[in-house]
Amino acid sequence: MTYTVSDYLLDRLNELGLRDLFGVPGDFNLQFLDHVIEHEGIAWVGNANELNAGYAADGYARVNGIGALVTTYGVGELSAINATAGSYAEQVPVLHIVGAPSKDAQAAHLTMHHTLGDGDFTHFIRMASEVSCTVADLEHATAVSEIDRVLREMMIHKRPGYILLATDVARVEVDPPAAPLNVPAKLSSPGARESFRKDLTTLLAGKKTTVLADLLVHRMGAQSNLTEMLDATGLPYATLMWGKTLVDESKPEFAGIYAGVVSNERTKKAVEDTEILICAGVTFTDTTTAGFSQNLPEHTVFLDAQTARLGRKIYAPLTLDTSLDIVREVALEVGALPQDLLPWEEENHADVDMDAPLTQDVLWSLLSRELTPGNIVVADQGTSFFGMASRRFPERSMFIGQPLWGSIGYTLPAMMGAAIADRDARGVLLIGDGSAQLTIQELGTMLEQKINPVVVLINNDGYTVERAIHGATQPYNDIRTYNWQLLPAALGAREDEVLMLRVNTATELVNAARLTQQTRDRLVFMEIMMDKDDVPALLADVASALTRANS
Amino acid sequence: MTYTVSDYLLDRLNELGLRDLFGVPGDFNLQFLDHVIEHEGIAWVGNANELNAGYAADGYARVNGIGALVTTYGVGELSAINATAGSYAEQVPVLHIVGAPSKDAQAAHLTMHHTLGDGDFTHFIRMASEVSCTVADLEHATAVSEIDRVLREMMIHKRPGYILLATDVARVEVDPPAAPLNVPAKLSSPGARESFRKDLTTLLAGKKTTVLADLLVHRMGAQSNLTEMLDATGLPYATLMWGKTLVDESKPEFAGIYAGVVSNERTKKAVEDTEILICAGVTFTDTTTAGFSQNLPEHTVFLDAQTARLGRKIYAPLTLDTSLDIVREVALEVGALPQDLLPWEEENHADVDMDAPLTQDVLWSLLSRELTPGNIVVADQGTSFFGMASRRFPERSMFIGQPLWGSIGYTLPAMMGAAIADRDARGVLLIGDGSAQLTIQELGTMLEQKINPVVVLINNDGYTVERAIHGATQPYNDIRTYNWQLLPAALGAREDEVLMLRVNTATELVNAARLTQQTRDRLVFMEIMMDKDDVPALLADVASALTRANS
Repeated sequence: MTYTVSDYLLDRLNELGLRDLFGVPGDFNLQFLDHVIEHEGIAWVGNANELNAGYAADGYARVNGIGALVTTYGVGELSAINATAGSYAEQVPVLHIVGAPSKDAQAAHLTMHHTLGDGDFTHFIRMASEVSCTVADLEHATAVSEIDRVLREMMIHKRPGYILLATDVARVEVDPPAAPLNVPAKLSSPGARESFRKDLTTLLAGKKTTVLADLLVHRMGAQSNLTEMLDATGLPYATLMWGKTLVDESKPEFAGIYAGVVSNERTKKAVEDTEILICAGVTFTDTTTAGFSQNLPEHTVFLDAQTARLGRKIYAPLTLDTSLDIVREVALEVGALPQDLLPWEEENHADVDMDAPLTQDVLWSLLSRELTPGNIVVADQGTSFFGMASRRFPERSMFIGQPLWGSIGYTLPAMMGAAIADRDARGVLLIGDGSAQLTIQELGTMLEQKINPVVVLINNDGYTVERAIHGATQPYNDIRTYNWQLLPAALGAREDEVLMLRVNTATELVNAARLTQQTRDRLVFMEIMMDKDDVPALLADVASALTRANS
Repeated sequence: MTYTVSDYLLDRLNELGLRDLFGVPGDFNLQFLDHVIEHEGIAWVGNANELNAGYAADGYARVNGIGALVTTYGVGELSAINATAGSYAEQVPVLHIVGAPSKDAQAAHLTMHHTLGDGDFTHFIRMASEVSCTVADLEHATAVSEIDRVLREMMIHKRPGYILLATDVARVEVDPPAAPLNVPAKLSSPGARESFRKDLTTLLAGKKTTVLADLLVHRMGAQSNLTEMLDATGLPYATLMWGKTLVDESKPEFAGIYAGVVSNERTKKAVEDTEILICAGVTFTDTTTAGFSQNLPEHTVFLDAQTARLGRKIYAPLTLDTSLDIVREVALEVGALPQDLLPWEEENHADVDMDAPLTQDVLWSLLSRELTPGNIVVADQGTSFFGMASRRFPERSMFIGQPLWGSIGYTLPAMMGAAIADRDARGVLLIGDGSAQLTIQELGTMLEQKINPVVVLINNDGYTVERAIHGATQPYNDIRTYNWQLLPAALGAREDEVLMLRVNTATELVNAARLTQQTRDRLVFMEIMMDKDDVPALLADVASALTRANS
């Protein structure tokens, strides 16, 4: 094969760390896929449909730093566009490569299949531009520089990009990259640095201080700066649900998950009653704050992607990694004091009836104790997310949810993508029966990929998270009743590829967890039978807040 | 309950013929759904996911004349947007109702769940406007007139519409409709009529004539005008694949399905060698013409939605129903002659080895003989569509495909929607294993709805239509191997809800068809084992044409 635009694009992606490419074939991308199959550094993962491919690429990128999917013009790309919007909202750099009709066919405005039939080939790139940080319709002459531009923007902004690749452009012969992709580092000005350091020195001296961190720290690549600062200063810290597992939750300095008025007392005191609160990369959304009920102390320092803020004073440009380093240095210098922490209210399992039907609160409490370092836990935005978000996780574990975008069904393909990105880690999916129906076919790809994850399916007869918000007994919150025990076999699982478990009581859960720990060579499917109206305490609180917001 | 904007919208839809509403609940539409449940004329059909809901509403609208689905803001609507684009391309009036955050939340630019987090609530309506004939973000003051405007536009243009319904607007109290929705009829000018009649009179006198009809005749409501014209004049007629079953295919005047160079000799002679060809509502697309290979006679009359055209002369405004009536009157008056027809090349089954593995050409030939009047046959755009499109259908049967938009997986939910629209008809789904994986969960809804259709699943190990185009042995055309015999049971089918069949040979097919005819009280699932490289003759021809177009 000659070296083409297709190869250039794949080499650049591989250089940025991409090793797996998701997607669905279609006649406008088949020849590009020949180059994918040929590429030594990138493996092809065929998905059952395009939305699932987009979700998988998102989960992959959250672990790997970049992800990508390939679809075909119109029909394929639009099926995946909800996933792209999710990647935009949650700041995940995923490249969407769309195979398109040839430039000749476009120029002639032909009534081609996969078009609206109006001869206009620009509808879908406009749609993509609403949910991408940048888009490009590659042309012969500028294909290579446009590829570099799109990838560079994605790496700077940590948002999805979109490349439209016409069949005839994909096979244009070009030279391989001459040098690595130049992604300009974000800069902090010396003036902003000094000014922030000076004001922070005055503020922190001898004051009780807490750190509240959130997802943007991860996305801006400042996680190690945060960790170093926390380790060096010994300051107590909390995160919002979105940023869960950004910090080590096993240490005594961890104050919990802050969620506004519904936070527990330990977390509330740490965040709200401290003299100084340092917010690092924090976004307050309705679901993570129980309807914007956060209550911050008067002296709160905001460290954002490219600015710091103290009262009305803004320091810019000042990148998050730099501002976190300054906090570390100043806190040590002036002796910032750790805010006092209440003890954890340990959950008491002594009075749990081990043989009674499981409740949500017992389930998540027991299940969280079974997590081990290295687990990648992906929880759908229903009882699973709210049930697990408030539990402490072991060190070096990862929690993935989608509290801003909140697309039901996202987690099943996303967990697969995350587990493919780190095949040494064990993926754990927490999902309800309502959510699982949306994207269930990707269980087949999961088996095909032999990632041997744990699928915990809450069988509670419908959309329980919605029952908690509105219409508890309305038929629209009911779903079709599947026979979940048959499902993996129907998707082609042989007996030695899957361990099927079913849990009704706490005793059965403990036994199932033990079997799961012992079974690493196959997918474990744990079906947990629950009452349809039972919700974790945190979800009940958040749901009331959201109901008030809708009325 | 008081009478609200929600009720008004539902009453108008019901007035236009809507009796079933598809969709997926979400917290911004739950209160609207309370009004759906209360509505006496409209039943709620909950789908497994939003794309499937969109496909189902499209299938429903093709049979019923109008369809609608409800989703929630951002996540829900974007999941369905590919279905809406398909409805646009194929001219199907489907209303997409999207529950949205309250106007207050929008005005405050809150970082709400299901948004991109940028405070901009207008991204998704702009995306919808690319694939809808009109969109509306309902406001308190103008909600009712905007509902009427959107529905009116949909009925005029036969394209999808989009209504954004904020939670607080949905519950605004209004008056019920005072009068039926006034949809202005399209007009033909007396001048255009007379001028067209005059020129047609000169043209048709004593000339051999054929009629070629296509989908737009159906969409513009001119099907009865077409039928009357054909019955009265006795002219021979053909359709393109898109317009299949628009005309009675059981009569001797039916000349076949015209597909450009790959048409059979009878159809080619009827269409290409006639003295006069009358094209009624015809759109030439790449897949229905084997890459635009149509070859029309010098004297071709084009009757389109609002114009007629004869050589370079255009007659406008002249609506399709009127121009068809004029053709009828003139043809009778001047004695237009039927173009000669060659006899059908009857398929010879005498030399079929009844106990050998089934081939595609034997399959479709045998299967088409089993169709009965009243069947609604929905064929996915792979071997199923091309295999069945060239076979003659019984009278009063309906064939649904998507040759322009061509979204893989569309047909499974679409067949369900079509069968719900006409519960007296029997739905027949023709689908490959590759296509079926994209939307398989809707089989559960199909069972839930008790429509007792026939699902014919071609098990041929992957994307055979793509193998025919490119990459016959490439791994990207492989798929996960399901155990299809277990699948309905996994989706909760009890033994008395489904008849499972598996077919390897022609003998087994004939037996399975007999059992299917006898079994009307449950879903029949017929799995047909085929070679993965075998394609129907028509598809082989079209695929070569498309391959040439891509290279």
